[in-house]
Amino acid sequence: MNRTKQYMSKFNKNAAPFTAAEYERAKLGITDYLAANFSAKDEQEMTQLIQALGYGEGDSLIIGREATASASFAALYNGLQTHLLDMDDVHSEVRGHPSAVILSALFALAEPTTSGCLFLESYIYGIELMAQLGKLVNPTHYEQGWHNTSTLGGMAATGSLAKLLQLSLDEQCQAMSIAATQAAGLRMSFGTPIKPMHAGFAARNAVDSILLVKAGFPAQTDFLFHPQGFLATLAPNVELASVSDREAPQTWAISEPGLWMKRYPFCSAAMGIADAAEQLYKELQDKQVQDVALIFDHGRDAALIHHRPETGEQGRFSGEYVAWLGLMGRSYEAEAFSKKSLTPDVKQGLTCVTRRYRKAATGQGTELSVTLKNGQVLTACVTHPKGSPQNPLTKEEVLVKLAKSNPTINTEDYQKIMKRFTETSMTELLAWIHKGV
Amino acid sequence: MNRTKQYMSKFNKNAAPFTAAEYERAKLGITDYLAANFSAKDEQEMTQLIQALGYGEGDSLIIGREATASASFAALYNGLQTHLLDMDDVHSEVRGHPSAVILSALFALAEPTTSGCLFLESYIYGIELMAQLGKLVNPTHYEQGWHNTSTLGGMAATGSLAKLLQLSLDEQCQAMSIAATQAAGLRMSFGTPIKPMHAGFAARNAVDSILLVKAGFPAQTDFLFHPQGFLATLAPNVELASVSDREAPQTWAISEPGLWMKRYPFCSAAMGIADAAEQLYKELQDKQVQDVALIFDHGRDAALIHHRPETGEQGRFSGEYVAWLGLMGRSYEAEAFSKKSLTPDVKQGLTCVTRRYRKAATGQGTELSVTLKNGQVLTACVTHPKGSPQNPLTKEEVLVKLAKSNPTINTEDYQKIMKRFTETSMTELLAWIHKGV
Repeated sequence: MNRTKQYMSKFNKNAAPFTAAEYERAKLGITDYLAANFSAKDEQEMTQLIQALGYGEGDSLIIGREATASASFAALYNGLQTHLLDMDDVHSEVRGHPSAVILSALFALAEPTTSGCLFLESYIYGIELMAQLGKLVNPTHYEQGWHNTSTLGGMAATGSLAKLLQLSLDEQCQAMSIAATQAAGLRMSFGTPIKPMHAGFAARNAVDSILLVKAGFPAQTDFLFHPQGFLATLAPNVELASVSDREAPQTWAISEPGLWMKRYPFCSAAMGIADAAEQLYKELQDKQVQDVALIFDHGRDAALIHHRPETGEQGRFSGEYVAWLGLMGRSYEAEAFSKKSLTPDVKQGLTCVTRRYRKAATGQGTELSVTLKNGQVLTACVTHPKGSPQNPLTKEEVLVKLAKSNPTINTEDYQKIMKRFTETSMTELLAWIHKGV
Repeated sequence: MNRTKQYMSKFNKNAAPFTAAEYERAKLGITDYLAANFSAKDEQEMTQLIQALGYGEGDSLIIGREATASASFAALYNGLQTHLLDMDDVHSEVRGHPSAVILSALFALAEPTTSGCLFLESYIYGIELMAQLGKLVNPTHYEQGWHNTSTLGGMAATGSLAKLLQLSLDEQCQAMSIAATQAAGLRMSFGTPIKPMHAGFAARNAVDSILLVKAGFPAQTDFLFHPQGFLATLAPNVELASVSDREAPQTWAISEPGLWMKRYPFCSAAMGIADAAEQLYKELQDKQVQDVALIFDHGRDAALIHHRPETGEQGRFSGEYVAWLGLMGRSYEAEAFSKKSLTPDVKQGLTCVTRRYRKAATGQGTELSVTLKNGQVLTACVTHPKGSPQNPLTKEEVLVKLAKSNPTINTEDYQKIMKRFTETSMTELLAWIHKGV
């Protein structure tokens, strides 16, 4: 047995049992996923994607449209749609977006007769796998330019599908290997619709990888540790010596530390900045701002690649823009993050915001330091923003997010279905999603 | 204009004119491509691929079957089929297989009315682009574990399609950026059918990237030089300072140094080994071999990842196996490179073959040094194996390869079509390929 198979075998065998607590987290994750997905269903990119590539033939669900497609296309479509407005969840160990990839892949291959329990377990397992891969390769993999959502997401979603379809260890490793050899996604794409497309590409690659193995394609199973494998090539700084000796976790990453869920459509790295800016706005009243400093732990602003965004879309990945919106009392709704060019006065406003880095890591959030024209300095630092695991969205808040994402849906029906979900199959949920368009 | 756009603009503007010599090279390249493709049309992987993913809807050519498919699937299918037996061409500056990717993408989007000249020019241009990208990133990119056929092939084929469809510079850079952010392919897959699949994935990504841009998806145009772009992330050792100041070449890479074309279905890095072994076989007669040393310039055996292959398929990437076959007077036909396990006596034979490295690079081929049981030492070293640009297959030899690849085809018809190709559209060639199944 090669090293990757040993690693995966240990991972599979030593995993903690699934408890009611994880099932609840997973149901909340699905709810938040659907809210993020529905929010984007009328965006032009979704029509453009169909125009570009066609549906393909098949019974898989295209969420938000009364249409079905090939499993590959459905995964691509749902991955893009869920991540399009950056309203979908994030995991700190992944340093990326797990559910957009994993659930898009799972929905593509789920059947009405699939057991609800198995679906939830496969999802929980996929998040775990992605978090473990994240712990292996972070922070250097991300900092080198990779978008973990797709590089790790493809492998994790494939592992998750292997669980759903109850493949053998050997088949699981082969399928994950095909995903590993397609692992891609560059952070240069942040601020363009190609960034959310990464979630779609990864979900599609996961589906394709499983289908290829099921059709008889063999692959190199040592996909992590092979001298020309994933780690050597995409994470060459990882110290491999002790990796395969790690123990499988005794708590699931979906619970501990848990998912971040968003209230607003911008990068999670700016969530604390937004909360801090909202606090300071109340203190500012009508005082004049001289300048604003964003003070980060080193490397914690890597996702915020736009210092001087040209459009609202780029502003999703700009700490400066998010801070400025909050300090000016502007709304964080979708309109502020559209493709439109920012107006000259906004761009002018952004010139007074700069970044600084703390000498030593503190583990705290980004500090906002606002110097007023009268010389006064106001500061705020939110380490646990609303939506982070330590300050989570409640179930009720996630249901409000869902209701807001799609005014035609009935959240009461949905709650009834999700309550029964672990006792039965996917039938009702899939039918509801179709009706819920 | 960002640095990548400047680079691409200079590349487009300063390129040499296309001459009759390049048209002839390109026609020979197409002929060799079809021979490689037809050779694999009855392999089980081709049926498995359809079984896994379905044709998709569309008019694009599935070579070797009387069927059409979506452009994306056709590119994937033809890419896999062409590279499946490793009979397709190689380029030394690419350090990989250009035509399997570029022509599979071009055939997927070519129409019967497409001008034959434009098709050839797009192909020549694509090879050039892939060679230039190779010169940028080699050797460290390849040595790190990347399979250049797919990582560089996706971008090059996208650039080639942009020329075929006469896109603007901006659209070309956007499309190449979508290919760059999907650039993947790990050398761990050598010796499995996932290696040839890389050519298919890259061709499909090229087609998808073009279709996405045509449907209105914008992308980051600075795909090469962006701090989180292709070079920083997949080729971090490249010295960027002087890159964009390079001049576009005054000769085309399809002519100078030119394509390697194969006689046998194994990795081009073993072509010289095979020729040397065939030479030595004649001298050996019935003398007993004690041991065999393969003596390489450092790094020149990177593609030959299997030292002790278990199957013929792995043996495609084993210098030891290719040397042993030749020295034993065995045939290099497909049967020797099948999925079957090697027999114990072959495995035993391989144990006497070892690798050594020269202290300093010589630029020569791999030397075979055979020590006989009687103490005698025989050596041979072929720097320019048959099929290399300095010792090329003739047009007649390539036509023999084509005829051998598919006994039902009429090479006389084909020659007539190719003779007229530059004067007219793709109609006849596409019709012939369909008939030629």
